Amino acid sequence: MSNMTKKLLIDVDCGVDDAQAIMIALAARNVQVLGITCVHGNTIVENVCKNVLRVLKVCGRLEIPVFKGTSKPILGVSIDAGHFHGQDGLGDSPDPSAPGMDQLQKEGAVEAMVRIVNEHPGEVSLVATGPLTNLALAIRIDPTISQKLKGLYIMGGNTESRGNTTMCAEFNFACDPEAAYIVLNDYLCPTYIACWEFTCRSKLPWEFCDGWLAQDTKKARFMKAIFSHSMEACRSERIEKELVAGQGFISCDSYALAAAIDDTFILESDEVPITVELSGKYARGMMVLDTLDILKKTHKATVMKKVDMEKFKQMLMDSLK
Amino acid sequence: MSNMTKKLLIDVDCGVDDAQAIMIALAARNVQVLGITCVHGNTIVENVCKNVLRVLKVCGRLEIPVFKGTSKPILGVSIDAGHFHGQDGLGDSPDPSAPGMDQLQKEGAVEAMVRIVNEHPGEVSLVATGPLTNLALAIRIDPTISQKLKGLYIMGGNTESRGNTTMCAEFNFACDPEAAYIVLNDYLCPTYIACWEFTCRSKLPWEFCDGWLAQDTKKARFMKAIFSHSMEACRSERIEKELVAGQGFISCDSYALAAAIDDTFILESDEVPITVELSGKYARGMMVLDTLDILKKTHKATVMKKVDMEKFKQMLMDSLK
Amino acid sequence: MSNMTKKLLIDVDCGVDDAQAIMIALAARNVQVLGITCVHGNTIVENVCKNVLRVLKVCGRLEIPVFKGTSKPILGVSIDAGHFHGQDGLGDSPDPSAPGMDQLQKEGAVEAMVRIVNEHPGEVSLVATGPLTNLALAIRIDPTISQKLKGLYIMGGNTESRGNTTMCAEFNFACDPEAAYIVLNDYLCPTYIACWEFTCRSKLPWEFCDGWLAQDTKKARFMKAIFSHSMEACRSERIEKELVAGQGFISCDSYALAAAIDDTFILESDEVPITVELSGKYARGMMVLDTLDILKKTHKATVMKKVDMEKFKQMLMDSLK
Amino acid sequence: MSNMTKKLLIDVDCGVDDAQAIMIALAARNVQVLGITCVHGNTIVENVCKNVLRVLKVCGRLEIPVFKGTSKPILGVSIDAGHFHGQDGLGDSPDPSAPGMDQLQKEGAVEAMVRIVNEHPGEVSLVATGPLTNLALAIRIDPTISQKLKGLYIMGGNTESRGNTTMCAEFNFACDPEAAYIVLNDYLCPTYIACWEFTCRSKLPWEFCDGWLAQDTKKARFMKAIFSHSMEACRSERIEKELVAGQGFISCDSYALAAAIDDTFILESDEVPITVELSGKYARGMMVLDTLDILKKTHKATVMKKVDMEKFKQMLMDSLK
Repeated sequence: MSNMTKKLLIDVDCGVDDAQAIMIALAARNVQVLGITCVHGNTIVENVCKNVLRVLKVCGRLEIPVFKGTSKPILGVSIDAGHFHGQDGLGDSPDPSAPGMDQLQKEGAVEAMVRIVNEHPGEVSLVATGPLTNLALAIRIDPTISQKLKGLYIMGGNTESRGNTTMCAEFNFACDPEAAYIVLNDYLCPTYIACWEFTCRSKLPWEFCDGWLAQDTKKARFMKAIFSHSMEACRSERIEKELVAGQGFISCDSYALAAAIDDTFILESDEVPITVELSGKYARGMMVLDTLDILKKTHKATVMKKVDMEKFKQMLMDSLK
Repeated sequence: MSNMTKKLLIDVDCGVDDAQAIMIALAARNVQVLGITCVHGNTIVENVCKNVLRVLKVCGRLEIPVFKGTSKPILGVSIDAGHFHGQDGLGDSPDPSAPGMDQLQKEGAVEAMVRIVNEHPGEVSLVATGPLTNLALAIRIDPTISQKLKGLYIMGGNTESRGNTTMCAEFNFACDPEAAYIVLNDYLCPTYIACWEFTCRSKLPWEFCDGWLAQDTKKARFMKAIFSHSMEACRSERIEKELVAGQGFISCDSYALAAAIDDTFILESDEVPITVELSGKYARGMMVLDTLDILKKTHKATVMKKVDMEKFKQMLMDSLK
Repeated sequence: MSNMTKKLLIDVDCGVDDAQAIMIALAARNVQVLGITCVHGNTIVENVCKNVLRVLKVCGRLEIPVFKGTSKPILGVSIDAGHFHGQDGLGDSPDPSAPGMDQLQKEGAVEAMVRIVNEHPGEVSLVATGPLTNLALAIRIDPTISQKLKGLYIMGGNTESRGNTTMCAEFNFACDPEAAYIVLNDYLCPTYIACWEFTCRSKLPWEFCDGWLAQDTKKARFMKAIFSHSMEACRSERIEKELVAGQGFISCDSYALAAAIDDTFILESDEVPITVELSGKYARGMMVLDTLDILKKTHKATVMKKVDMEKFKQMLMDSLK
Repeated sequence: MSNMTKKLLIDVDCGVDDAQAIMIALAARNVQVLGITCVHGNTIVENVCKNVLRVLKVCGRLEIPVFKGTSKPILGVSIDAGHFHGQDGLGDSPDPSAPGMDQLQKEGAVEAMVRIVNEHPGEVSLVATGPLTNLALAIRIDPTISQKLKGLYIMGGNTESRGNTTMCAEFNFACDPEAAYIVLNDYLCPTYIACWEFTCRSKLPWEFCDGWLAQDTKKARFMKAIFSHSMEACRSERIEKELVAGQGFISCDSYALAAAIDDTFILESDEVPITVELSGKYARGMMVLDTLDILKKTHKATVMKKVDMEKFKQMLMDSLK
């Protein structure tokens, strides 16, 4: 029934796990993807746009509008994204027949975000799987969008000061601490966060991944091609140090997406006021939980602790069918 | 001749000296004001919009489009503006027949700024006399506007760590340090800055001000009405402490405007790379001059040191005629 | 055997759990307490001195020299210690016949620390249960003491950004972040840390505490008198929020002391390079674990994860006998 | 008359201008130098000690006690001092018959500072021409010395954010910002500061310097030998950028010393509350003037603006006679 349809707006810095998240959304029933907005992060924003178009093409869904967003964080100084997802952000497995940039919308991502939320007041679930630059700019340009969102689902931040990029900061927040601060302080809609430590602890066995990729479908072959670079990288000493609870298949961005499309996905969570450290030497970009209630914030975020892993596996399996 | 016409876009947080600057622009020959964008600062952005409309009405120029911009600084936390310019930002001298908010453009200030600069590439002089929030958002949404501007004229910042709002920061920069940082680092067009110490040292005698206001015109009566609150405030102990070189008539915002409309206004200046301190306890928001060339920036700003005070007096006189 | 004797120097900000730690040391076999140095923290340093003397008197050990140390943190700005341990730091249960301040040594704590470590090179275990100001000053005055220590045992800091005083900082580190930074970066001897989250998770049941205090001894009666204020406070909403893993009897400082007197006390630990955030708005004073090895520090601290709770209970029981 | 004698304690990081200051003190009538304490800064503290002994030998004053102090700033992280004063801090003009380190006192500089001030309450003028580490440690160990000093004379800091070492910080303050903060906030005695911009504007013509060095004395020959390296360096592009008011002979440390020995030396000054920025990215170590009285400090420092240059020249001339 149409009144059950979830309307999603997805903001990505499309590396491989963003691709996985998008493909979960495209495969889900009762989900309408209103648009995909692109932001710098895992790779430059031009690559992000190309990567999203490739994903949509593989899924036969190029009718979904794709918008190019900001190429830099708020302060303008990018950190080195490394090449966990490959130079092109998608495993360095190019497709000669990939869609061209002419397939992008003329409208910019921030303007589109403001417009789309205003066109569907109370209905849009915004899923953000990259640095939060587009979202931060959108709410400065139109402060009313926060109250018009149904929900906000974020992959980013950390709960226990375990950094995977700087000593204390997770990649998406480290890329644009000011944007994370703005979003966590100004978006007052229901907010669900899949943090770094949580995603690490919610890993799947590599054996599952093998079976997942072994499906005899076009989508599975695509995923296998773009994912092999990252799977290799997971064995490096540096990545080992980043992981909180040891090796495994961690599709970070997919947890946020899964929570957005299934209200029963989150099994345990903390409701806690959160903000972001902006000025520390080591802690800049770290998510901060105000467990002592010092800030007297009325808005609390839902920080995921435990999710339905069986559902998660099913969503992943379906996404490559 | 039309090819001599200066095309101005003016971004204001319309207090009294913003009003003075606008009136100088409106009175100048060969100047076309393409629009006035409003930003939070001396008062809330709604008041700023109203104040600009009142100034335009007094000058009979309500055809100039006025755009409402951001109501908050980048990080969202406003400082207390005090009430130097009165509660309403314009001397608490209300006009019952002031134009209504329906006179505002529907388009937002940031979007308008991007559009107008793109419509007149290489021709627009952007004058900013308030916190730089609108300008910062505009360049994140369209990074190309910096190279399409003819010039950027800013009132703000300081050169010798003399704060007038916090211990080390000038009001416009203190209101939105991140915006000032973004603008000074990302706008690579010719940039001219009238800093706090400079404006203090370029004061006019109060006697000049008396004569200026004594002109028997509608505009002069308007200025006298809106200016008396600030003139009174100048005698307070707090304002005394803020002033760098003693008492006098200081129309801060007018120096930036004057430089924009007359290329011979600036007599002496320093060309120096500049940025803004974001993270200090006392120095947050302070403009920083990189005299040692530590940052290896290629872009240098023109920091005003001495201007043609005779021309300045003439511009002020003309503005109330 | 004398060559088995552990030589302890104990630096305290003697609240109630410092008293518990001192009493464990005094009751231990094969432990020689070379001196007790006092520092500001749970209460002003004058109270700390008085409290230490009271503990020594109850235990009949006033021959142990007590030294008055610094009254302020490195930067000189004290935080409000609250009154968890009572106004006097020892449960507001005064003793009319308490020893006078004339019992203190004339030598200052920092000078005594330097001297004692130099007199027993390679033999002294330094246990620090308060802010680390004395230790920080000592190593600046004599940089050689680090290599002359047998070991350093600290109660302080946190591993998961769970603050009990500020949003991200534990009390001892929050009291003097610079001192914590100096000690963690300059003391290169074997270093053992009992952090806030660890002590919370290593709590004992209140039932144990009841039995412990019910012993019919002078020491147990003293402990019951000074501890009742804190036990009461544990039920307050604020303290509830501070606790990481729920209610229980947590004698924070005693874990560091226990590790110093029994080499088999620590069952599990992490060896990790650590430092302290000094400049964050929320994270100032937070202990930082460099799990990514970004700082390339050669020195690693031993961060306690699991200790022998049966031994701990026995030490506590013995301390009141 | 003995009751007119000025008792000086001099704390130096003996480079060339420290040597000049010491020699002014040694040549002055009615001045008793109680001791010279050494601190890291222009060169490592071992070199500082050697350099002071060389100066005393040339002046035939080896009876003055010299004390070795701290080798590191408070936080332990030294900045690169460059080699303005030569590798050895004294122009790389070694003396084979220089006094040995055995001439140093056994007592450390911080302990000596505390002792000497306590032995002459109300009488000691403390002159500090290097990083303020020794002074900061001294007042933490004995908070009473501040009120026992007659006066404190500092070369360091800046008044207009003109850095000569980092973008906004002067060398002595940049070397140890925390120490500068502690001293400016905790020493409540009369405090006189010769800041960087002031010393630059109080320069002497190089012609004076030529005549000064051309005196036919042992001391003048020594000065010529140790000064030639720095004089050469003054012509480098980097040093040019550091200078606030152009080229000239600037003996920075000598202004503070001159003020200590002649109460009529300072002709103009500002009385202003001051502190130090500790946490800025660009402004760390910058001296901050609280002209707005935001901090509500009761203690004000005397910041030199104009001094008696004729007296200064005479002191310099006398110092090499």
